[in-house]
Amino acid sequence: MARRNILWIMCDQLRFDYLGCAGHPHIRTPNIDRLAARGVRFSNTYVQSPICGPSRMSFYTGRYVRSHGANWMGVPMRVGAPTLGGALAEIGVRNVLVGKTHVDADVEGMQRLGIDPQSPIGRREAEGGFEVFERDDGLVPKANPEKPTRYNAWLRDKGYDGDNPWHDWANSGVDEDGNLQSGWLLDHADKPARIDEPDSETPYMTRRAMEFIRGARNDERPWCLHLSYIKPHWPYIVPPPYHDMYGPDDVIPVVRSKGEREDPHPLFREYMDERVSRAFSDEQLRRHVIPAYMGLITQIDDQIGVLLDFLDGEGISDETMIVFTSDHGDYLGDHWLGEKELFHDASAKVPLIVCDPDSRADSTRGTVRDELVEAIDLAPTFVEYFGGTPQPNVMEGRSLMGFVEGTPPETWRTHAFSEYDYAMRGPRGRLDMPVCDCNATMVTDGRFKYVHVRNLPDMLFDLQSDPGELVDLGRDPAYVAERRHMRDALLDWALRQHNRTTRTDQEIAREAELDGPAKNIFIGFRNEEEMDAALRTVSTD
Amino acid sequence: MARRNILWIMCDQLRFDYLGCAGHPHIRTPNIDRLAARGVRFSNTYVQSPICGPSRMSFYTGRYVRSHGANWMGVPMRVGAPTLGGALAEIGVRNVLVGKTHVDADVEGMQRLGIDPQSPIGRREAEGGFEVFERDDGLVPKANPEKPTRYNAWLRDKGYDGDNPWHDWANSGVDEDGNLQSGWLLDHADKPARIDEPDSETPYMTRRAMEFIRGARNDERPWCLHLSYIKPHWPYIVPPPYHDMYGPDDVIPVVRSKGEREDPHPLFREYMDERVSRAFSDEQLRRHVIPAYMGLITQIDDQIGVLLDFLDGEGISDETMIVFTSDHGDYLGDHWLGEKELFHDASAKVPLIVCDPDSRADSTRGTVRDELVEAIDLAPTFVEYFGGTPQPNVMEGRSLMGFVEGTPPETWRTHAFSEYDYAMRGPRGRLDMPVCDCNATMVTDGRFKYVHVRNLPDMLFDLQSDPGELVDLGRDPAYVAERRHMRDALLDWALRQHNRTTRTDQEIAREAELDGPAKNIFIGFRNEEEMDAALRTVSTD
Repeated sequence: MARRNILWIMCDQLRFDYLGCAGHPHIRTPNIDRLAARGVRFSNTYVQSPICGPSRMSFYTGRYVRSHGANWMGVPMRVGAPTLGGALAEIGVRNVLVGKTHVDADVEGMQRLGIDPQSPIGRREAEGGFEVFERDDGLVPKANPEKPTRYNAWLRDKGYDGDNPWHDWANSGVDEDGNLQSGWLLDHADKPARIDEPDSETPYMTRRAMEFIRGARNDERPWCLHLSYIKPHWPYIVPPPYHDMYGPDDVIPVVRSKGEREDPHPLFREYMDERVSRAFSDEQLRRHVIPAYMGLITQIDDQIGVLLDFLDGEGISDETMIVFTSDHGDYLGDHWLGEKELFHDASAKVPLIVCDPDSRADSTRGTVRDELVEAIDLAPTFVEYFGGTPQPNVMEGRSLMGFVEGTPPETWRTHAFSEYDYAMRGPRGRLDMPVCDCNATMVTDGRFKYVHVRNLPDMLFDLQSDPGELVDLGRDPAYVAERRHMRDALLDWALRQHNRTTRTDQEIAREAELDGPAKNIFIGFRNEEEMDAALRTVSTD
Repeated sequence: MARRNILWIMCDQLRFDYLGCAGHPHIRTPNIDRLAARGVRFSNTYVQSPICGPSRMSFYTGRYVRSHGANWMGVPMRVGAPTLGGALAEIGVRNVLVGKTHVDADVEGMQRLGIDPQSPIGRREAEGGFEVFERDDGLVPKANPEKPTRYNAWLRDKGYDGDNPWHDWANSGVDEDGNLQSGWLLDHADKPARIDEPDSETPYMTRRAMEFIRGARNDERPWCLHLSYIKPHWPYIVPPPYHDMYGPDDVIPVVRSKGEREDPHPLFREYMDERVSRAFSDEQLRRHVIPAYMGLITQIDDQIGVLLDFLDGEGISDETMIVFTSDHGDYLGDHWLGEKELFHDASAKVPLIVCDPDSRADSTRGTVRDELVEAIDLAPTFVEYFGGTPQPNVMEGRSLMGFVEGTPPETWRTHAFSEYDYAMRGPRGRLDMPVCDCNATMVTDGRFKYVHVRNLPDMLFDLQSDPGELVDLGRDPAYVAERRHMRDALLDWALRQHNRTTRTDQEIAREAELDGPAKNIFIGFRNEEEMDAALRTVSTD
């Protein structure tokens, strides 16, 4: 039976260009490359926000950040928000989670609506539409007895002791004297994490995914399994053999220029001044840390190999579409920045591979599409894959199935958008900006990338003449027209109706066909004669 | 006890300029004028959509149409949408309805969340946050046995017979031979409605309001009573003595020009071609119909007199703020248009009077404010009146209490906005526009009024040199800069976060103060030394 399941693999903080198939000269990702060879790789995919939480909520709803409203970690989507899970449930598909989501529950909203958080509806709402097989948001900064993770308990059962074995074993090394070398600290990125590799997070989550799949054998419902790896997100530390698989010479050159530090955009300047940015601006540190990042990626790749073999063994490879992506990138020192959050490609662009075993996709295997794709395109893609009809008044992305099946849509979007709100960050204080004024919005047409930053100057990059995005034309008088053009595209997008979720376009069109007289409402008729004439027209139509 | 209640009176389709206090030379509105003399009149108040449903949802939430999403009648706000009623409930205030709201229930949304529409929460959600004392949306096109109105039943009890006494008696005349003269037909606007005046809709609703107020005497909770009259909305017909209280010579001159019909904006052209517009473009018809519209207004004014006396009699005049407004205007032939829906002042501007008996408001009695006010300002005004704190991440308007108390805010909005979606209307078909492309958005800074119409040219009026809005500068090459300026204001507004309703600005600011180390998250530290130094800083702060 074809088109039964989707295995949707998401990495965390994986750059678009740290894959063999995407052109990285040194990294080994043979299994992901194999997916690309069997499927379609979308080389121009932007997340809707270059930060975990908001980006993920866009993936999980098919809606822009401005629409779902969860513009930072800890800001819940409102109870009742439309989700991918809700849309799949309507067509009888399970939407299952193994791993990270960053979904927060709208506890107050549920209370106002009298929804018990422990009821099935309450749990679904609290989990962003997912059926949770295993939820693990990855970071366990300190052991929280009220929120124990299954992974920490499992580690303890295996003999990894302490309050927080996630930190002390899976994400730390140890020196010869037995002193902990915390993976939080960048100097320890070259240390071997002191955990047996099969017990580290990526293989653990892979096994959990396989456990779910095995358990679902006898369930008649198809599933969409979101296997959401926590890596290669920091802490940058990895167990052997991955910890020394790559060396400083495997690190690709940094993308930055001295010019970027001369009179930079104020927001860019403040981000360059963040501690993590100063750290990654040191080339020695880059060469020290990035090999661990690469090891984490190859570990994921190996686990994807395990998964592919497993699907073969289960006999469901030919009925399971595999989708591979990430929630955002990582500057790794590019543009004198660490982390993510701004809109350069290192941060806002992600890998995306869709590998559909169905014969309808045979003609597109191994192809690369450079259309502007948005993260929100996945939700409608999945709905269409399972035979549903995505509703554009709710899911603002567009299905990619046409690209997969070799019948690309006649028209495609001309612009991609991404949003970021820095209200929670240090730069807000240093820029003395009110909380409500911290939104920045990116639009690109593939040629230019424009960023609108409230109360601050624009940013603009010419991706054709400056693919490295090293020259900010946002205040260059020679580019007034280009900026205006991009602002118009932004306005066109922003003025769209993003919240008419309770009625579809079709319902509106159907209702509009009924004019007044058909509803016994008579507007603008002077007398019986006029009205009768109109009614005759209605009845003979 | 001061500041106990609010009586919030809303008319339907009342123009801003059909009141004595607003300068109408002939209409008699002594009671409303008395409110203006005792309170503050806001002479520049725009509704957030020049059409009943969407405009009302903005009043009832304090949110723009783009935010609540109910952009047409029959499009429900989503279940759980924040409302004025919800905000008032949190501070112990009843939000009570007598009359019209046009609220539709999100039945499917409630079903998805397992909310019983008959439960207290379900009823509140289905009614947009109102506690319904009496709901009556006014129009009863045909008798619907499944949705009987209390008013029709009451009329029948009084001996007004037939399936639909609302139509046959309250909104029709009768000729000498006993033939019904339906108020739907404009030719009958000068006929006396065949109902005893005290039994017609406006006095009926007034009595219902008084019944609620009497009944609330022994309830300790303060109340906000929304007395929402259905008039002077069509059918344009009124019982004696109001039916011949005004004559053709009382009709103020039409505001239009021949130039408006020469090469008009395509959307404007299509609206001018609507049946109701063609009818009201006939001066004879205007002079025939508008006297009935004026009679309906004076009837409301008389009933407000009854209410004011009643409040005196109840001894609660000194603890009840009275607010008077309308949900939108009526073209009445101005600009060759009937009805409303476009953004000329006749349609998008409404009367607004706030009359607070509290001594704190003594210094502002009888004043007129010409600041740009939006309908969404009322919800936060009411919350503040009752001692609450409006949250701007939810309520997008601003409290007017400062103007009322003689302490106007130091800064005020520079632009007002209004939205309209014509997807349900004839012009969509004639313009061959997809449902999702029918939004038009107005912005005014008081000097210019600009309208962005998706896929169609701009409209622009210079309110200073052309207060009648007769010359559309939207395609005039001499006004490129002005249009650009207004587009920038529109972009600034549209890009704001409109959906972060689950976390307040204060909560964001508070959370932002906790940096990584305070949460045991260590980003960008190289080694123990750096980390320890930072931790020492944190702990000594």
